[in-house]
Amino acid sequence: MNKKIEEIIIGIKPVNFNLMEKAQDKLDNLTKPKGSLGKLESFSKKIVGIRGTLSPAIQRKVIFVMAGDHGVVQERVSAYPQEVTFQMVNNFIHKGAGINVLAKHIGAEVVFVDMGVAKRFPSKKELIDKKINYGTKNMAIGQAMSRDEAERSVIAGIEVFEEEFKKKKIDIIGLGEMGIGNTTASSAIVACLTHSDVEKVTGSGTGLNSLQIKDKIKVIKRALKINRPNPKDGIDVLSKVGGFEIGGLVGCILAAASHQIPIVIDGFISTASALLAENLSPEVDAYIFASHHSVEKGHEIALNYIGKKPMFDLEMRLGEGTGAALGISFIEAGVKILTQMASFSEAKIKRKI
Amino acid sequence: MNKKIEEIIIGIKPVNFNLMEKAQDKLDNLTKPKGSLGKLESFSKKIVGIRGTLSPAIQRKVIFVMAGDHGVVQERVSAYPQEVTFQMVNNFIHKGAGINVLAKHIGAEVVFVDMGVAKRFPSKKELIDKKINYGTKNMAIGQAMSRDEAERSVIAGIEVFEEEFKKKKIDIIGLGEMGIGNTTASSAIVACLTHSDVEKVTGSGTGLNSLQIKDKIKVIKRALKINRPNPKDGIDVLSKVGGFEIGGLVGCILAAASHQIPIVIDGFISTASALLAENLSPEVDAYIFASHHSVEKGHEIALNYIGKKPMFDLEMRLGEGTGAALGISFIEAGVKILTQMASFSEAKIKRKI
Repeated sequence: MNKKIEEIIIGIKPVNFNLMEKAQDKLDNLTKPKGSLGKLESFSKKIVGIRGTLSPAIQRKVIFVMAGDHGVVQERVSAYPQEVTFQMVNNFIHKGAGINVLAKHIGAEVVFVDMGVAKRFPSKKELIDKKINYGTKNMAIGQAMSRDEAERSVIAGIEVFEEEFKKKKIDIIGLGEMGIGNTTASSAIVACLTHSDVEKVTGSGTGLNSLQIKDKIKVIKRALKINRPNPKDGIDVLSKVGGFEIGGLVGCILAAASHQIPIVIDGFISTASALLAENLSPEVDAYIFASHHSVEKGHEIALNYIGKKPMFDLEMRLGEGTGAALGISFIEAGVKILTQMASFSEAKIKRKI
Repeated sequence: MNKKIEEIIIGIKPVNFNLMEKAQDKLDNLTKPKGSLGKLESFSKKIVGIRGTLSPAIQRKVIFVMAGDHGVVQERVSAYPQEVTFQMVNNFIHKGAGINVLAKHIGAEVVFVDMGVAKRFPSKKELIDKKINYGTKNMAIGQAMSRDEAERSVIAGIEVFEEEFKKKKIDIIGLGEMGIGNTTASSAIVACLTHSDVEKVTGSGTGLNSLQIKDKIKVIKRALKINRPNPKDGIDVLSKVGGFEIGGLVGCILAAASHQIPIVIDGFISTASALLAENLSPEVDAYIFASHHSVEKGHEIALNYIGKKPMFDLEMRLGEGTGAALGISFIEAGVKILTQMASFSEAKIKRKI
């Protein structure tokens, strides 16, 4: 594997289980019946393990939204035309999209990255340029990108995180994406890595009807048959049936974990990236939080594969990191429970009879 | 029925369905695939119907936390001693409880009310005094309170809301409670109103073991047998097996609905209050949002009875309005989606193929 990626992976350490036990003691002494704040307590415990401190604080929250185009749209796998990727990125920059609204709601910043949109953007400070290529190639007739491009997309994701982290410390990240055609790539990735039938992990994306979904399934099957991605080699899978924004998210996950920063995934596409990241480095698993359960078919199989339970199901399927934003807010709530509530002795309250 | 309560009930109007349809049109023109923000979209639509405006804003959020004691604790139905109600209210005032932390997290104010705690508080500006009595009587040997006390507790809840609303307009409220023994009262209310077996709606509260739960069930059955509350008369049910804080919450719900203010319920106890409020005035149903699915047994039956689906399940069972706080944040997210996202034409984005 590429040296830069290997270096990052070597730097990913196990979380601190000893400190997590201490966090449990602390939680059990707060003024509430034991365990009565359920998963909020688990979230804070996990954050303690990741951050390596009993008094974690979530101050700077950053959602990384990576965009890329997909050659496979030639096969009519999406309900929207390819230029929508470019147009939506402009919408992000002008703060008109769902993720802009929800990130602001939870007090998070958003970093938008062009990983491989098919059109050129004029240089803008609101958009980081890491364009690997002008969209991937059509995976239904050959591999989506070269192995070198796949590695470069992961490295670009690492760089994006590290450059942002260098500017100012980050306490938690969310992942989001935009790319017409990227549920097709994600279904192929998830089918390959989880050894699932393509039918079971292929949904309507932005809004295909059942006939169109059948065609999408055929396209994905063809892509897998022609390219034969090796499920034991995440980079091979990424290069053959992935996308540049997906590679970028993989890099972002690896880099965040190597800096002991928790990662909140969003829907189907970012979960596919998490599967790839865990394929490259099983250690990252302990750093990842699932946020919502998406409507997109296949999300549940992907989440189950990495043993993650989503926090909520609001029947969302937008992507962009919208579910991750709400998930970050839940995790932050959990951390505040741990660090701001009074203990029984502080509040002079009687314990259980 | 009492005249003041009747007046409030008469003032509760149906929500504006016409405007809700217009909200749907607006949502469908925002830069996202139709319906892709799922329940966030439904929340905003419902808020439009309640508030009667296509541009609602959620600025002032208030969580009303009502406290009261229960004579039935003589029957050992709780894992904690009665004085914990008093101690926890002091903890609220000193900002050390779960609800203090979560309300602050979502930017809400909390109003604490002594509806009937068994001990006297020194006069404090952080605690509204509406004490109806020093705890209810033991419902296992007679009715919990007189009919007059039941009505006065509802009226006190109305007053609490209206006094707060007069100070400064409120955009949404959450409900919370504290009262050792109040899951016992709530199980009795829910069993009576939903015609359910007591076993199906009685859980461990703050932490009973299975043997203790069996005893709790017996106590509730005895209370229902002795008192024979009339399920067609909410005030009768409240007086015979209710609690002062439960009555206060009922009043709060009625008053908020009469002012077209959405109400977010929390766990089992506040849901029992919602059942009572809907018993008095079916119109309030359209104003109520369920927030979380509580661990407490019987919550699901109660929610189903009023046709509410919870937004999330974090395995919480603390009460105090902690689940309502997180639910308010989701509703606010939905409202911001409606009012802050760009439309397709504003963002110059192509529609579906």
